[in-house]
Amino acid sequence: MIRGHNYIGGRRSAKGTVIVKSVDASTGAELPFGFHQATETEVSAAATAAQAAYPLYRRVSSERRAQFLDAIADELDALGDDFVALVTQETALPAGRIQGERGRTSGQMRLFAKVLRRGDFYGARIDRALPDRTPLPRPDLRQYRIGVGPVAVFGASNFPLAFSTAGGDTAAALAAGCPVVFKAHSGHMATAERVADAIIRAAERTEMPAGVFNMIYGAGVGEALVKHPAIQAVGFTGSLKGGRALCDMAAARPQPIPVFAEMSSINPVIVLPQALELRGETIARELTASVVQGCGQFCTNPGLVIGLRSPGFSVFIQQLAAAMGAQPAQTMLNAGTLRSYAKGVETLHGHAGIRHLAGGTQQGAQAQPQLFQADVQLLLNGDEVLQEEVFGPTTIVVEVEDPYQLQAAIAALHGQLTATLIGEPADFRHHAELTALLEQKVGRILLNGYPTGVEVCEAMVHGGPYPATSDSRGTSVGTLAIDRFLRPVCFQNYPDELLPEPLRDANPLGITRLVDGQPSRAAL
Amino acid sequence: MIRGHNYIGGRRSAKGTVIVKSVDASTGAELPFGFHQATETEVSAAATAAQAAYPLYRRVSSERRAQFLDAIADELDALGDDFVALVTQETALPAGRIQGERGRTSGQMRLFAKVLRRGDFYGARIDRALPDRTPLPRPDLRQYRIGVGPVAVFGASNFPLAFSTAGGDTAAALAAGCPVVFKAHSGHMATAERVADAIIRAAERTEMPAGVFNMIYGAGVGEALVKHPAIQAVGFTGSLKGGRALCDMAAARPQPIPVFAEMSSINPVIVLPQALELRGETIARELTASVVQGCGQFCTNPGLVIGLRSPGFSVFIQQLAAAMGAQPAQTMLNAGTLRSYAKGVETLHGHAGIRHLAGGTQQGAQAQPQLFQADVQLLLNGDEVLQEEVFGPTTIVVEVEDPYQLQAAIAALHGQLTATLIGEPADFRHHAELTALLEQKVGRILLNGYPTGVEVCEAMVHGGPYPATSDSRGTSVGTLAIDRFLRPVCFQNYPDELLPEPLRDANPLGITRLVDGQPSRAAL
Repeated sequence: MIRGHNYIGGRRSAKGTVIVKSVDASTGAELPFGFHQATETEVSAAATAAQAAYPLYRRVSSERRAQFLDAIADELDALGDDFVALVTQETALPAGRIQGERGRTSGQMRLFAKVLRRGDFYGARIDRALPDRTPLPRPDLRQYRIGVGPVAVFGASNFPLAFSTAGGDTAAALAAGCPVVFKAHSGHMATAERVADAIIRAAERTEMPAGVFNMIYGAGVGEALVKHPAIQAVGFTGSLKGGRALCDMAAARPQPIPVFAEMSSINPVIVLPQALELRGETIARELTASVVQGCGQFCTNPGLVIGLRSPGFSVFIQQLAAAMGAQPAQTMLNAGTLRSYAKGVETLHGHAGIRHLAGGTQQGAQAQPQLFQADVQLLLNGDEVLQEEVFGPTTIVVEVEDPYQLQAAIAALHGQLTATLIGEPADFRHHAELTALLEQKVGRILLNGYPTGVEVCEAMVHGGPYPATSDSRGTSVGTLAIDRFLRPVCFQNYPDELLPEPLRDANPLGITRLVDGQPSRAAL
Repeated sequence: MIRGHNYIGGRRSAKGTVIVKSVDASTGAELPFGFHQATETEVSAAATAAQAAYPLYRRVSSERRAQFLDAIADELDALGDDFVALVTQETALPAGRIQGERGRTSGQMRLFAKVLRRGDFYGARIDRALPDRTPLPRPDLRQYRIGVGPVAVFGASNFPLAFSTAGGDTAAALAAGCPVVFKAHSGHMATAERVADAIIRAAERTEMPAGVFNMIYGAGVGEALVKHPAIQAVGFTGSLKGGRALCDMAAARPQPIPVFAEMSSINPVIVLPQALELRGETIARELTASVVQGCGQFCTNPGLVIGLRSPGFSVFIQQLAAAMGAQPAQTMLNAGTLRSYAKGVETLHGHAGIRHLAGGTQQGAQAQPQLFQADVQLLLNGDEVLQEEVFGPTTIVVEVEDPYQLQAAIAALHGQLTATLIGEPADFRHHAELTALLEQKVGRILLNGYPTGVEVCEAMVHGGPYPATSDSRGTSVGTLAIDRFLRPVCFQNYPDELLPEPLRDANPLGITRLVDGQPSRAAL
């Protein structure tokens, strides 16, 4: 049932002789699935298939593209319990989580279908001719947005569905009218195959052009993909090292292309005095739950907890230590992730400015939750140890002396996906400057919540300044994600019958357009 | 009156000992103005001043930012005849052109002020809480856009006002809430000083923070500016070589930043048979006027004319040769531009696949308009000689055998700012595929017009695939230009009083927002 062949232009291809194996995440044992690493020729063929599909797919109406996305969602929802069991086997994530993630992934597809039907993604703008204007008449000018071209997508290990084969980047690119070449993640290749099959079934059922979705397996094939001239943009979720390498490759191409890499974030949580006084123990418990949720394997996992020196904060640290110390070890996504985690924890243990507060010795096949405390000077002096994400169930407490040092500590942070403020109304009055400071550092600010939940909706920003992402002007979750893969085109003095539908006088799609500087859904 | 000191944080600074001189563009003689090249310390101080202004300026209300832009426009309009004479002296552009360009530049500022008051640039989105949703409630999520931070702007030689000190990039960045560090163009430094003074007067009059606008003089100072950690984005108009160098520097920074470089375009014009039959001579005359307008020193100058082999096209080439041959020599912007032009013309003369059709010998102090004809194989084989812009009053005719070769020729083109179709309704019916093909290559398609006019409006796209620009998702003319300098920020579960104005329940700015997936101007 799992063939392990690459997906190229609507066909399967297995020209390579290098076979990569999928692994049981809990036992480390090889699974009985072999995947043919794509050859250079196959990588090129996949990119070329996407390029051939582009002129056809980009002109598929937004309604039909929406039907395609809806069909993918239906196919995903129809995957049975055997599928859930397979994902669980490859990732060690529990079945309930996988079922939830599948719903999130199909829901994401349906949300983009809704965006396509609403039509605001077109960004339609019309400036009508002013033939009598002096000294020069104004021609008729109309603008809409089209897909940039084939997009290469690299999925994440930690969301085998929602940030992978049919995940947010794929959904956004397909919605934008861009064919996709997906690089299957080595951590869940059988899962990727099942999901790719679902996408291909949906593409065939809705009569999309062959090559609208392609997938390649193997190590090191990503470089050739990003360098292929047919590829026009890249979506990536993963490590800072991996993301930056792709950015550098893309920038060095004869034709540079944009890379949207979501990479590294420590997601500071700032706990304020009144809140600690009123509900410190609850906060310690909730924060612990957020840190260890899913074995801490979230991009938005809270890796830094900052508080103002006070007896209340000291008590809170003790409560947090007690709660963190009581957390059981958990199995990580794969052996590589566990190795990285153990190394990160070791670095923290070995740093002179950092004290260990709670957590069992990190050894064996599972990750032990850990709590550390770091001297604030590390943050103020820009020590990299506090800026680098330790991917897993670990967090670091930092105590600041006063509000001024708190501001300095925030200013010293690198770019982040999220920042969280835990406080009472009086706290926010006393620290009114925090929102404006945090806005300059992050993509999302939460108030009295925990960052590990990332709602898929219109208003979500899952992005932020470098190194959280490579381009703070994008988001990889939520409907704004489509903007990354669109570019504007303008028509000057075009007769109505030659214009694309979104720009025609009669407004046949019934979309909102900016007409002579005013939003309008009216026909002209 | 011209002091030649750098503009840093609202003060003038002249710490450097290297003095660069402005030159009379018509005579080549040095003008009596010396400009102090910014030292490394001064470049850093200018970037730091912009960084210091950013937290203040980005929180200046959109209405007050609009007042600032309006004030700049008023100051520009109030510059007297002596200013026009100075620009003419530095650029050899005629007074009427400079007066028109000043109106365009102040009009551009006022248009961005209008955008600020309309408020759609905020991209406000609100997803209200769904506390009863199962299995998980949805928090309240709200998104708007803020300026990315200090922007470095490099002006163009050919538009000393509209694409320079107070030009489109500066206007878009200031509108977005981003302080600017402008690198004065060596071709019109005294002009830059007068314009910078106007901006500073407007900033003082409207009480903007010091450092909202800074300007530095000198050769080689741009590199230090782009590499300065305070700079968060770059706007550039100029050569492919210069733009690409900035892109490479920006991509290699510890924190890579986006560069919006508008670089090189040959702006193909496709003349179709019916149009040639009906009005070939008129087209030859109009096209000639477009090629030689302003000595061909426009980014959108038509550098390639493509037609289908026919007796009509042969006659048209003769008419075009006659018209081009009758054009007088013109003075270019500066000696460097003339040298580049002479070199470009020489390259065309020396190429075996290219024939010279019209134009006097290129010699002396002025540019001679030239017409060449190239073998279509050069285009089909990707010969760089046809893809590189010859900046000046030169164009190249290419004859294709049939519609299939026309399509192949278009497919072989690099990215362009514009493409133009000249035709009659019957032509467009016979060549219905052209629009879809050209869309993939350009930012703007014109029908029965000439690309040299670039209207400043909502729907304009002055952008396009590489190498026309470094990022096809942007435009450097028109109101969409503001998008390049904005990034989204999301607030989760924020109480109304802590939210920024554009996101408050009452909608105090009265702007259109996407509320639960529907555009709305209503209060919540």
